[in-house]
Amino acid sequence: MREAVARACLELLVEGEIELAPATVALRAGVSRKTLYRWWPTRTDLLRNALALHTRRLEPPDTGSWAGDVRALVAQLAAFLGDPVERAQNAILASGLYPDFNRVMLDYYGPIQAGWRAIVERGVARGEVADDVDPDAVVSAIASPLLVITLLERRAPSARERRALERLVLRATRPELAAAEETRSPARRRRR
Amino acid sequence: MREAVARACLELLVEGEIELAPATVALRAGVSRKTLYRWWPTRTDLLRNALALHTRRLEPPDTGSWAGDVRALVAQLAAFLGDPVERAQNAILASGLYPDFNRVMLDYYGPIQAGWRAIVERGVARGEVADDVDPDAVVSAIASPLLVITLLERRAPSARERRALERLVLRATRPELAAAEETRSPARRRRR
Repeated sequence: MREAVARACLELLVEGEIELAPATVALRAGVSRKTLYRWWPTRTDLLRNALALHTRRLEPPDTGSWAGDVRALVAQLAAFLGDPVERAQNAILASGLYPDFNRVMLDYYGPIQAGWRAIVERGVARGEVADDVDPDAVVSAIASPLLVITLLERRAPSARERRALERLVLRATRPELAAAEETRSPARRRRR
Repeated sequence: MREAVARACLELLVEGEIELAPATVALRAGVSRKTLYRWWPTRTDLLRNALALHTRRLEPPDTGSWAGDVRALVAQLAAFLGDPVERAQNAILASGLYPDFNRVMLDYYGPIQAGWRAIVERGVARGEVADDVDPDAVVSAIASPLLVITLLERRAPSARERRALERLVLRATRPELAAAEETRSPARRRRR
């Protein structure tokens, strides 16, 4: 039932029925209004339940290397952001017409973004990412270009664009050559 | 009159009157419908005229250095993208409800983006930017995070975010240290 209600809400969002009127959701999901009210008393509850289903596949990649993780995250986000549900949600955010929707959405994506930052931090811990990068800026550098292409240009990012983005992110996060040389120097090795 | 008509159209876009009905535009701009039709016979003509006024301040920066240009472009775009007119236009793009509007907008921004790519190319010519970067990816790395913050989070980018973005772009575009060393080597100098 939880999934039926979530699917009904996601369909309604794509159709522009942003209010998620309980009567409409109940009818679409095939549950009684009483049941709907008992489990999801407010619109915010309905939205959170819908977002839980929608973002289920956003498990942050963990391929064992920073380069692999960047590639996997670019592929995952290119697919996810092109999804009609995700596009509809981002269009609602952009419209600014439903401030409570925006609040729920941004709250919901907070922990997901934290998972992406954790990828950067693992890269730093492995010495594959410069330790003075700003993880938020790196996550934004990966996600934002894909979001702009899918949302505003309304097309899928090309293979060439994805490759160029991966390369740019890897260059931006590469540890300094000087630091890399230092770790190879005998003085440094002695200190270990 | 050209400017009065442009201002009227930009106001209407912010108010959600995306159709730009000639009667409404003429009334708002204080011109006759006959005059309006003579100069701007289609909605596309009205849109182009409005965009010309709106984007007038998007002169690409040319500070003499790549780092200075990146800083100037980040500052310019952070201000421009937060403008209510620009936010309204991007929300219309994101809605996908007005395909002809999207076409005109994307056509219009084509030459503007070319101006931004030219900044990157000047940086390459001066040896301040790696010669194997993808100029489109660099422009997107600068503009997209600012667009996502202003459009979807609906707030101004913080000073910290702008600094982090500038740093990330400079790192991503820095010429290879190896190449820099090569240019300093006597063998290379002799070849010049």
